[in-house]
Amino acid sequence: MIIVMRPDVTDAQLDHVRERVEAAGMRTHTSRGQQRVIVGCIGDDALLEDVPLLSLPGVESVTPVLKPYKLAAREFAAERTIVQIGDASDTVVGGAELTVIAGPCAVEGESMLRQTAHRVRAAGARMLRGGAFKPRTSPYAFRGLGEHALELLADVRAETGLPVVTEVMDTRQVDLVAGYADVLQVGARNMQNFSLLSELGRLQRPVLLKRGLSATVRELLMAAEYVMEQGNRDVILCERGIRTFETSTRNTLDIGAIPVLKAETHLPVIVDPSHAAGRSELVAPLAFAAVAAGADGLMVEVHPRPEDALSDGDQSLDPDAFDGLMDRLAAFAVAAGRTQAVRASGGAAQTAAA
Amino acid sequence: MIIVMRPDVTDAQLDHVRERVEAAGMRTHTSRGQQRVIVGCIGDDALLEDVPLLSLPGVESVTPVLKPYKLAAREFAAERTIVQIGDASDTVVGGAELTVIAGPCAVEGESMLRQTAHRVRAAGARMLRGGAFKPRTSPYAFRGLGEHALELLADVRAETGLPVVTEVMDTRQVDLVAGYADVLQVGARNMQNFSLLSELGRLQRPVLLKRGLSATVRELLMAAEYVMEQGNRDVILCERGIRTFETSTRNTLDIGAIPVLKAETHLPVIVDPSHAAGRSELVAPLAFAAVAAGADGLMVEVHPRPEDALSDGDQSLDPDAFDGLMDRLAAFAVAAGRTQAVRASGGAAQTAAA
Amino acid sequence: MIIVMRPDVTDAQLDHVRERVEAAGMRTHTSRGQQRVIVGCIGDDALLEDVPLLSLPGVESVTPVLKPYKLAAREFAAERTIVQIGDASDTVVGGAELTVIAGPCAVEGESMLRQTAHRVRAAGARMLRGGAFKPRTSPYAFRGLGEHALELLADVRAETGLPVVTEVMDTRQVDLVAGYADVLQVGARNMQNFSLLSELGRLQRPVLLKRGLSATVRELLMAAEYVMEQGNRDVILCERGIRTFETSTRNTLDIGAIPVLKAETHLPVIVDPSHAAGRSELVAPLAFAAVAAGADGLMVEVHPRPEDALSDGDQSLDPDAFDGLMDRLAAFAVAAGRTQAVRASGGAAQTAAA
Amino acid sequence: MIIVMRPDVTDAQLDHVRERVEAAGMRTHTSRGQQRVIVGCIGDDALLEDVPLLSLPGVESVTPVLKPYKLAAREFAAERTIVQIGDASDTVVGGAELTVIAGPCAVEGESMLRQTAHRVRAAGARMLRGGAFKPRTSPYAFRGLGEHALELLADVRAETGLPVVTEVMDTRQVDLVAGYADVLQVGARNMQNFSLLSELGRLQRPVLLKRGLSATVRELLMAAEYVMEQGNRDVILCERGIRTFETSTRNTLDIGAIPVLKAETHLPVIVDPSHAAGRSELVAPLAFAAVAAGADGLMVEVHPRPEDALSDGDQSLDPDAFDGLMDRLAAFAVAAGRTQAVRASGGAAQTAAA
Repeated sequence: MIIVMRPDVTDAQLDHVRERVEAAGMRTHTSRGQQRVIVGCIGDDALLEDVPLLSLPGVESVTPVLKPYKLAAREFAAERTIVQIGDASDTVVGGAELTVIAGPCAVEGESMLRQTAHRVRAAGARMLRGGAFKPRTSPYAFRGLGEHALELLADVRAETGLPVVTEVMDTRQVDLVAGYADVLQVGARNMQNFSLLSELGRLQRPVLLKRGLSATVRELLMAAEYVMEQGNRDVILCERGIRTFETSTRNTLDIGAIPVLKAETHLPVIVDPSHAAGRSELVAPLAFAAVAAGADGLMVEVHPRPEDALSDGDQSLDPDAFDGLMDRLAAFAVAAGRTQAVRASGGAAQTAAA
Repeated sequence: MIIVMRPDVTDAQLDHVRERVEAAGMRTHTSRGQQRVIVGCIGDDALLEDVPLLSLPGVESVTPVLKPYKLAAREFAAERTIVQIGDASDTVVGGAELTVIAGPCAVEGESMLRQTAHRVRAAGARMLRGGAFKPRTSPYAFRGLGEHALELLADVRAETGLPVVTEVMDTRQVDLVAGYADVLQVGARNMQNFSLLSELGRLQRPVLLKRGLSATVRELLMAAEYVMEQGNRDVILCERGIRTFETSTRNTLDIGAIPVLKAETHLPVIVDPSHAAGRSELVAPLAFAAVAAGADGLMVEVHPRPEDALSDGDQSLDPDAFDGLMDRLAAFAVAAGRTQAVRASGGAAQTAAA
Repeated sequence: MIIVMRPDVTDAQLDHVRERVEAAGMRTHTSRGQQRVIVGCIGDDALLEDVPLLSLPGVESVTPVLKPYKLAAREFAAERTIVQIGDASDTVVGGAELTVIAGPCAVEGESMLRQTAHRVRAAGARMLRGGAFKPRTSPYAFRGLGEHALELLADVRAETGLPVVTEVMDTRQVDLVAGYADVLQVGARNMQNFSLLSELGRLQRPVLLKRGLSATVRELLMAAEYVMEQGNRDVILCERGIRTFETSTRNTLDIGAIPVLKAETHLPVIVDPSHAAGRSELVAPLAFAAVAAGADGLMVEVHPRPEDALSDGDQSLDPDAFDGLMDRLAAFAVAAGRTQAVRASGGAAQTAAA
Repeated sequence: MIIVMRPDVTDAQLDHVRERVEAAGMRTHTSRGQQRVIVGCIGDDALLEDVPLLSLPGVESVTPVLKPYKLAAREFAAERTIVQIGDASDTVVGGAELTVIAGPCAVEGESMLRQTAHRVRAAGARMLRGGAFKPRTSPYAFRGLGEHALELLADVRAETGLPVVTEVMDTRQVDLVAGYADVLQVGARNMQNFSLLSELGRLQRPVLLKRGLSATVRELLMAAEYVMEQGNRDVILCERGIRTFETSTRNTLDIGAIPVLKAETHLPVIVDPSHAAGRSELVAPLAFAAVAAGADGLMVEVHPRPEDALSDGDQSLDPDAFDGLMDRLAAFAVAAGRTQAVRASGGAAQTAAA
């Protein structure tokens, strides 16, 4: 922590600041410049976490030296984290292969889920998404089928071999959802629901953590830290667009966050182009861009008939459009130095590589 | 809902759009301009809530005509809502008197809480705030004393007569917190924790709903709608600053949201200048501005010794500074056509009026 | 400047950084913590303005210690700047009296300008605004009457005694506009038109500098510095709303910028509530809030018949509404410790004070 | 234009609105729903450009049906615009080949410019960038060599055959800069300098128009319209990052703006990854993403020794890093269906294609 004192600071104020810092267990080093006196604090910045330095008389500004996250930090881990999905599956996130997750926004019934699952698997998806509990801006909108949807997801997993990811909205649902899902998703609006994060930290089940609409990269990593601090190290980060002044897309995909996150953390980073786009014709270019920028995977909304979807129909691809996306995606994956499962004439996906 | 079709729309696409709208229970009216065909949908926009109109071929844009909130809308209520606090207290929010809520960010112990409560009551505060469960960006920071803090709040209420407001972070805490608090607060990061909102809607206890950092005014009202739709009509809205590119204040107080909310809803609107400011010397001007813009109340962080505070010390006022704020505030309250409880020499607050 | 080195920095990289800093004329001080090495740079940060420190190998982050503005900085001036307007007028900005500037968005003709000027003067305005050259988002919109409007402004000034402020958009217009106007306004979209700022710095005529839609407080002060660096010290800063994600107001009035600016600079600060509001019924609450937060003045759009206005009619007040605003404003001005010219029955404005 | 009336609208208010719209030359159509009356305006929305509809009594909201830009609109042109650069060169922007522009932020001298030009040409760049007049946030920073830099650019063009693009900041510089440059660049801070845009519209020379930091896609297109409306149809749009709350990159590259612009306009769209990144190690991933999202070209800052650069050194690539970027870029260009000039062993660039 570096503390810059105001130009008119008194010796007594300076002494007081040093005492407070030293009382917290750090050493101080004072440097007198021509226009400002600076107090450098030597030790772990976390010791000063709860000290309101700005409120001390004579303090002008306070700048941390160390990152506030530890377990999530790149330098904490010897190598990048590869998250293994499910016990039996060969799906991973963060490996050499680009991991594509696809499926409907919400599970609306058995037939549409099964149909979607078979199509996205054939096209190269490695995991199935589908909402059972849906956070909706309006209390009057469809909020998901709940536990019945979880059962359907498990049935379709048994049939297709695709592991499933679904959202958990409430601490009270954690055990229920964990009873079915291979990966538990935290939605953007819950990224700083700290009770939920802590609860998920107690599981041994991967967590897919979506970035909040106005969360900084640093806050996203601190949210991951909440999960990890409880013992669960399998966190997958997901960029899905942030809120800005621009309204021509539903959200602004923060493409720069991908290389920043890859530099800051060892955790895998995927991108949800569907929520950023908000309109189906924009999904493919955002997906290609995400892979080009270094994403480890994608999560794409696919519905058999988007115009009948009960939620997010505007941004969902139909299975044919998803096939087209996957076909074009392979060349970008290869350009980015990755392999990608691709569509095969016989139905089972194969792998494209450079 | 008004649907603008693309310039190259076909008759078949147009028919299909009309069929979908009519199937949802609305009537349509088609208007052919020189450059665009427009389909007006007559009926309740909510019928189209789950129809992905943008995904229909030939659709260029979709504009709602009606506001998505109903119970929270100004036109729903015959008059403005005045929220009665506690059973026995004479505190209300939304009445002629400006309601000032004050107290520490977190309850750190009995002595500091009691000391603060007596001072803020004498200065004219009508309600005591104090966190028992604290949402913190870092898992390594102080997270509150939990139920013990709730007990202390109840003790100090008994002693001072001040009703208490405290935050609830988790659906599992709702019953516990409701056992002690007069008002349950939803924090900015939980504004779209829909499970929590619904749970609070089942209580008969006022809810203080803070605006999320990147929530629009419309989304704030939809969050209130979630509570109200369950039967609880006593929602107090709280503007506390939004996230923008500007960093010279902790958040950007959206002062314009106050008159907008007063026009859009019958619910009372208060302002938290402390979180917007982020630094104690900015709290007073923001408080004055909030009252001038028409706020029904303020919520201010006060700590006996801000520099020893375990959270938000940078933005907390000490009791003397709070006295000063209240002394100056009275003239602004009167200018805004309100009364305000003011500090009396004898200790019990009195009322200033025009 | 404080330079934090990466955890894996080598001695050679560290030496290289110190050499570059010292070559620029500063001294360095190196502090080795447990996890990071820090290089403190002692001297004037401006010496490092053109040194790309982040590009040097081993550098993690760079934090300035000093503010980049000098002439605009609070500590530069012995006391607050009071800008004298015109040679003969008794109008100032930054003094004890709240200075209200009012008039139409654009000068549309003689009659409407004269009518507006008389009404706003009677209501207590101290300066007349009116655009001759209008920046418009669309090239197809009305762009002002040009020099003819300047002549009309001068005529009405002669008649009413009100000094005039009008916008200059182009370096080529500076001499022309300076031939008529008492204050030259730089619009929000030109706040970083550095050629224009420098040109205005060569005049001895006050400049009213509007904050850009996405300019930080720091950038606003740097824009003022551009004018001042050329010799013109009479800069009036104007907050007029910034661009955020919220669309229920035209812009988001950054009310917190007022006390921040009053702490950071000696220059006077006024507020334009009209552009922030975007709709006439929101102008008054924003005006009151601005004065409560400490603004030195206001600039308000007034038009005899807003619905016939050729620009900004949505946010213009008619003269009766402006009378009402001024009547209510006086109590806020007094609460803020200021005087304000108020409407008198006889026509000439008088002064309200505590 | 669609006008929604307030629920309590009177017949007289409704009649008045219709009269105003019809007086402007449009026809109206009134539709009475259960909760709102809607007035549809049939004709060209531009006729209502200067009518302040929101100020009319009884009006709740106003929604345009047509886009405000005409010449820039996709539907205006029979096919996409391909901008021919220079008289003799074979460089175009908007064709099948990805056009890479590279060079230093500012021209600092002859040797560095020549050295950079030869290296970027060999690596596959098709145009040379270099600032002669530099907009700088601080008046104390290096502001470019002015006309001497223009002469150096012309010399190096003669030597290498690379056409040159350079910024024009001021209407007074237009003729001077046009005397040397093949393309005139408008910087982000001048995107709404309408005088400058109009002046450039009178030339027959391509304009490279950078998006403002807080400009919407729509405003960018309206700025292009300003140039085109004067007769100059050769506008190249450049996305370079917008200002958001996120600070881990210098700006937030709005990757979604690329496909949106490709759908909305026939003009070519390029991306400047350097200004969005702010740090050299982030430039390559952003460049790859831009091409994947469909950009027609890139503009990249390259300096022989970034750490000695007088401006933007933090984000400049050295020639070796630029070679590396171009080598990796080719596969992305091919994946995006484009060709790209690539580095050849012999020095002259060749073309990669699928």
